[in-house]
Amino acid sequence: MIFNIDKLYNAVKTKGHVCVGLDTCIDYVPALERSSALNDAQAVLAYNRTLIDATYDIASCYKVQIAYYEEMGLEGLKAYSETLKYIKNKNCLAIADIKRGDIADTASRYVKAHFTGDFEADFVTISPYMGMDSVEPWIKEAKTLGKGAFVLMRTSNPGMRDFQYLTITENNKRVYNAVGDKLASLASQYCGECGYGLFGAVVGCTEREEAAEIRKNYSNLFFLIPGYGAQGGGAKDACILLREGNGGVVNASRSIIAAWKSVNHENSQVNNDFAAEAARNAAIKMRDEIKNEL
Amino acid sequence: MIFNIDKLYNAVKTKGHVCVGLDTCIDYVPALERSSALNDAQAVLAYNRTLIDATYDIASCYKVQIAYYEEMGLEGLKAYSETLKYIKNKNCLAIADIKRGDIADTASRYVKAHFTGDFEADFVTISPYMGMDSVEPWIKEAKTLGKGAFVLMRTSNPGMRDFQYLTITENNKRVYNAVGDKLASLASQYCGECGYGLFGAVVGCTEREEAAEIRKNYSNLFFLIPGYGAQGGGAKDACILLREGNGGVVNASRSIIAAWKSVNHENSQVNNDFAAEAARNAAIKMRDEIKNEL
Repeated sequence: MIFNIDKLYNAVKTKGHVCVGLDTCIDYVPALERSSALNDAQAVLAYNRTLIDATYDIASCYKVQIAYYEEMGLEGLKAYSETLKYIKNKNCLAIADIKRGDIADTASRYVKAHFTGDFEADFVTISPYMGMDSVEPWIKEAKTLGKGAFVLMRTSNPGMRDFQYLTITENNKRVYNAVGDKLASLASQYCGECGYGLFGAVVGCTEREEAAEIRKNYSNLFFLIPGYGAQGGGAKDACILLREGNGGVVNASRSIIAAWKSVNHENSQVNNDFAAEAARNAAIKMRDEIKNEL
Repeated sequence: MIFNIDKLYNAVKTKGHVCVGLDTCIDYVPALERSSALNDAQAVLAYNRTLIDATYDIASCYKVQIAYYEEMGLEGLKAYSETLKYIKNKNCLAIADIKRGDIADTASRYVKAHFTGDFEADFVTISPYMGMDSVEPWIKEAKTLGKGAFVLMRTSNPGMRDFQYLTITENNKRVYNAVGDKLASLASQYCGECGYGLFGAVVGCTEREEAAEIRKNYSNLFFLIPGYGAQGGGAKDACILLREGNGGVVNASRSIIAAWKSVNHENSQVNNDFAAEAARNAAIKMRDEIKNEL
């Protein structure tokens, strides 16, 4: 069985670390294209396709943030489903950024929802608050289907300090370490040929503090690294979370998919192709910035 | 503005504490009805309607667990949307059990998704791992729209001990207390006429341990109480989490919506009406068990 984590490891080797975040807000779609689409969801889908066409040789993977599609209701979720299919047809890897987390019985429903059927993805993101029995149904199926996941550990938003940074009496470590420790132990049991666990962790690059320690302590965890670009993290911050040039993908969304807004343009002239070229250039720039810091 | 938390408080006063959990797995739908339906999602929707018809005068509210609908893909989410509409048309309150939680920008997309449009509900459930900036976009809209939410605090699954029960050095309290403390402070700012905060907490009744303390410490939080029935909690456990006969709703799903399986029956004879009568009887029994323990 070739696990998706091995495919992702290889994609990083050949294409670099960029994960393109398809958090496709309707405001990112050029006005010209919006007005000619059937509805917002269809405009977003068409824009996603152009973005994927323009970046699939540079992107190690895509992260599709389901919230932006749920926002548009049933039509939005059709666009979400079609976006995942389009990524698959390009032989690329898709991370469904769903941050689900629920008790075992319910989790197994989410597993079916996001590892098979209309919303099938290669990886998902999982929220750990409810405990490891909310993670286990995912790993059981991941083993069989070759899938993977990233569990929230230390995120990239200011609010991460509220609970993830609390110090626990047991060992004077933080709550996010308690999550990381459980994941590291899971990774030693369920691991790809590349040496990384089938399930990795979400570790943001907005804070340099503790980053080197996190990388050192969790050497068998592959990291999904948000916070790059618009959220404030730079190539240097991201590279601290990588390991021997691999071991992580760095997500950027707005700075790639809305890059056209920073390019000199006449609004009435901007179409998807113009925006896609700007996205491609931004993705190449980001890929090279990270490579140069390694 | 009449807030949903006030409506829920009044519903508990007039109808009792039962929250009917529409975690409607296709296996709970009588085989007879499944075979005549267009697809699984339509069978679930028809069953939900019969269940709602049979319980709306007993149920203080309904909790619809979205995982069971996501599992069925796009068709499932149509059934989810229609179920929410049906509850609304019966003048009942719906809690969307979605356990979403994401950074502020993304959270505001989820807010739009679940407080308006196809998936509009009266309350949602929220996961707090990412911190209070993932909760704030919800409260901002809740104030305007009258909506409410329940944030995961101490859940009802064994895995809750993994992270929620960790003791923190700052004050020797648990992680779930850190969540509760933030919610209590939010509730003192944003509060309904009934005296409870617009946002309450999910506190399971599977563990009697610490329940009285939780109720005492968080007197301004309305509780959504899972774990009753099939998960092991009893009326006594649930009542410890109530306050002056109100302040919480107790969710039961399988023990109500699959109650027909415990009633003497010939499989080939069981239809939705038979199952709905069993559900009604189970809901009445539960309502009275809780009342008798108060």
